[in-house]
Amino acid sequence: MLLMEHLIKVYNNISRKKETFVPINSPFVGMYVCGPTVYNDVHLGNVRTFVSFDVIYRYLQYYGYKVRYVRNITDVGHLTEDENAEDKMLKQAKLMQVEPMEVAQLYTNNFHEVLYLFNCLPPNIEPIATGHILEQIEMTQAILAAGFAYEIDGSVYFDVEKFNKKVGYGKLSGRKIEDLIANTRDLDGQENKRNNLDFALWKKANPEHLMRWKSPWGEGFPGWHLECSVMSTKYLGANFDIHGGGMDLKFPHHECEIAQNQAATHYEGARYWLHTNMLTVNGQKMSKSLGNGFLPAELITGDHPVLERGYAPMVIRFFMLQTHYSSTLDFSNEALDAAEKAYFRLMNAWENLNKLSLTPNANLQDAAEMEEVNRLCEACHQSMNDDFNTAMTIANLFELSRKINAYNDGKLALESLDEPTFARLQATYNDFIQVVLGLKNEQKEQGGKLTDGLMDIILDIRKAARENKDWTTSDLIRDRLNTLNVVVKDAKEATTWSVN
Amino acid sequence: MLLMEHLIKVYNNISRKKETFVPINSPFVGMYVCGPTVYNDVHLGNVRTFVSFDVIYRYLQYYGYKVRYVRNITDVGHLTEDENAEDKMLKQAKLMQVEPMEVAQLYTNNFHEVLYLFNCLPPNIEPIATGHILEQIEMTQAILAAGFAYEIDGSVYFDVEKFNKKVGYGKLSGRKIEDLIANTRDLDGQENKRNNLDFALWKKANPEHLMRWKSPWGEGFPGWHLECSVMSTKYLGANFDIHGGGMDLKFPHHECEIAQNQAATHYEGARYWLHTNMLTVNGQKMSKSLGNGFLPAELITGDHPVLERGYAPMVIRFFMLQTHYSSTLDFSNEALDAAEKAYFRLMNAWENLNKLSLTPNANLQDAAEMEEVNRLCEACHQSMNDDFNTAMTIANLFELSRKINAYNDGKLALESLDEPTFARLQATYNDFIQVVLGLKNEQKEQGGKLTDGLMDIILDIRKAARENKDWTTSDLIRDRLNTLNVVVKDAKEATTWSVN
Repeated sequence: MLLMEHLIKVYNNISRKKETFVPINSPFVGMYVCGPTVYNDVHLGNVRTFVSFDVIYRYLQYYGYKVRYVRNITDVGHLTEDENAEDKMLKQAKLMQVEPMEVAQLYTNNFHEVLYLFNCLPPNIEPIATGHILEQIEMTQAILAAGFAYEIDGSVYFDVEKFNKKVGYGKLSGRKIEDLIANTRDLDGQENKRNNLDFALWKKANPEHLMRWKSPWGEGFPGWHLECSVMSTKYLGANFDIHGGGMDLKFPHHECEIAQNQAATHYEGARYWLHTNMLTVNGQKMSKSLGNGFLPAELITGDHPVLERGYAPMVIRFFMLQTHYSSTLDFSNEALDAAEKAYFRLMNAWENLNKLSLTPNANLQDAAEMEEVNRLCEACHQSMNDDFNTAMTIANLFELSRKINAYNDGKLALESLDEPTFARLQATYNDFIQVVLGLKNEQKEQGGKLTDGLMDIILDIRKAARENKDWTTSDLIRDRLNTLNVVVKDAKEATTWSVN
Repeated sequence: MLLMEHLIKVYNNISRKKETFVPINSPFVGMYVCGPTVYNDVHLGNVRTFVSFDVIYRYLQYYGYKVRYVRNITDVGHLTEDENAEDKMLKQAKLMQVEPMEVAQLYTNNFHEVLYLFNCLPPNIEPIATGHILEQIEMTQAILAAGFAYEIDGSVYFDVEKFNKKVGYGKLSGRKIEDLIANTRDLDGQENKRNNLDFALWKKANPEHLMRWKSPWGEGFPGWHLECSVMSTKYLGANFDIHGGGMDLKFPHHECEIAQNQAATHYEGARYWLHTNMLTVNGQKMSKSLGNGFLPAELITGDHPVLERGYAPMVIRFFMLQTHYSSTLDFSNEALDAAEKAYFRLMNAWENLNKLSLTPNANLQDAAEMEEVNRLCEACHQSMNDDFNTAMTIANLFELSRKINAYNDGKLALESLDEPTFARLQATYNDFIQVVLGLKNEQKEQGGKLTDGLMDIILDIRKAARENKDWTTSDLIRDRLNTLNVVVKDAKEATTWSVN
């Protein structure tokens, strides 16, 4: 890949345009994605976000960029939205009667397990909010020094109105400060900040608050928005390439990040802002109150009233990638069933492809056929270059899979291709499935049930052979099973087997 | 389990005696284990340590204690032992030409993957050294305030001689300060500390040092010993129950931890100090310079000159647990082969046990037989109560497995047991293998190769049936494979199969 050519285009939410992606310091790319708040099981919307950015991370590397992917873990400061804004971690720790860091650890582990199941690559750095308290205090000091924050009674707030007048607030979300002021609720006496729009950089800890650190303003804890400004700039610099996250984080979280970054460093942080869209179930918004929200584990097992059955993690990953990350993704049993069939078609063609071997024959080569295969291979790149359009890429792979199956069935002559074209077909299909889309061949990994089923067949044939005194077959089965270390035991009740 | 009875005894390295384990605040138990320095692949000695404490963690919980298990990740401050003492993380980061935190992340992920393979439970809290800089600065301040440290040119050192005079140094390792002074090398000009024995609590960062934080003494980074004092007491309190780690950490690391804890909190930290012993290979110390040190992955694949072949992770885990954690563990191909055979014997008996079902018959019950089974079950508990003696526990499980196989083969009548005894046998065998020793049945998880082997047998039988015009057999195979979604394709060259 020639990195001088920057062929990737991304839809940049801050300019609301599709732009050519030009890294600040090519071939290096810095990408920050907002990670989970680890106070409960990771939800499916998060998984979609992380699968989407996993493919973006994979493709940028495949394209030739050297990517530093940073994704944080939020273990402090993320407040609940109810009136008595409580820290989500602390609330869960109280419920579970454990130390808050035990809650964080438990759900961090859960998060990692789920993303491992969905074959997401780990980021290069996964910084933790409580691991960067010192840096958060320093950024708060810098924002205070720049005049965009004020301290009241041990807490420090960002002064949104002042920042808006001098620099401008709302660029990412397109919201106007007048409208925002008109629409904020007046929560009397709850907080002593000057203006409802202002947000906490540092919060004073009540006596009963467990997570607390010493600061120049007394004991307290950092505000939620601050950690992402701190950790993105610490590991990627004040001015980096990509910032990603779920659409729901655009406002206020990302808007506040930009304000903090500009106040502290004069830079906006990222140049390209990418957001993944929300999930729906049978056309309705997925939400707790509607009872139609299932966890990743429930989708895998099928153990949820909305689901007819479960789906393998790779089928779910494939299903997610069939929709572009910036579109709403609708879950339904029908759509998942269809995705499962499609996924296995793709995998079967993949197996067929890797069994094919070409003996080139110049007399049989067909220029039109070669051109078409080359065009389809090129199209896989083009669709990924077009704002990482995995939906289009999958469509192109399906066109290739029809070719592959035709070569395999003999309906098309494999010899119509020359060696470079066939090699390109193999490389493209393999790479886009495995390296770029990060799909694994699920059926290859199963084993257990299939093994039991096959052994049942063999033991039934053996039984029949013995009844028919066909000792040749029954001896053959015994010897062949022996070489596989399978030991068969005949007892009165049943014949059983085990592996030695 | 009656928690009023504290029946567990542990060998306490600080008293050099086997003592009854009485938690400070029963049923709660706090346990801290020194985790890895994440600058390269985790080595096998570390895996042995973490497998050992995993079993201790499992057994304490099985016994009924509520355990908070804290195991740290060292990502800063661990200096190399050569003359120009360099931070291990930074050295590796330079070699890899990446940011130090990328090195930490890469090897933290590797570490987690390896422990996952060996079926170690994650600790309740896994704190990171760089995530506790503020707390390390605070403890340094406390030690300075207590008069046991001094600052020179932006670094802070612990004053070992002064501490020794006033409180006493060397209790854990049994070393005398006079001998230590006589034996330390004089590294001229390398550090400006007062005494060679003194160790850094905080080190000034050179201009080229990448990992640096602001502190009251200028920009720098914490000393290695400090993090464990800080993180153990932060999450377990100044006075907690168990501190574990490899024998090589006893001095100076754990000795320095105790000194820091006493200087800052007046407590020694842990009451019980447990150390795992070292590894040898064919009787020789495992070491880089001897070329006989293999990584966990190499032991699994067998890809190392010293190894004849590879072993499954569960076989290795079982092999490790066959030796008491405080004894030297010697690796050899013969010992590993023997362990593999023993492991599969244990697993086979486990499978047999779970297939047995008892129809109680009062006439056939045998008091002596029941007493023996009950005694062996009790012995499993007793051996774990005796300083977590997994070697003895495994020996007891083997005695039980001989019983189980005899019941299974009909050499002993299962009906000689009454229902409670049989239930106890099943519960004990299941629990000790699965819950306490943390072993999984490795052969159950394979699948892939076995499936291929079984399909080969079936396809050969099918081929022979077709040649013999035995359509019954060939149709049966087709139909049965259909129900398993296995599709067979006959082509000129070969017959292939796939799962739909």
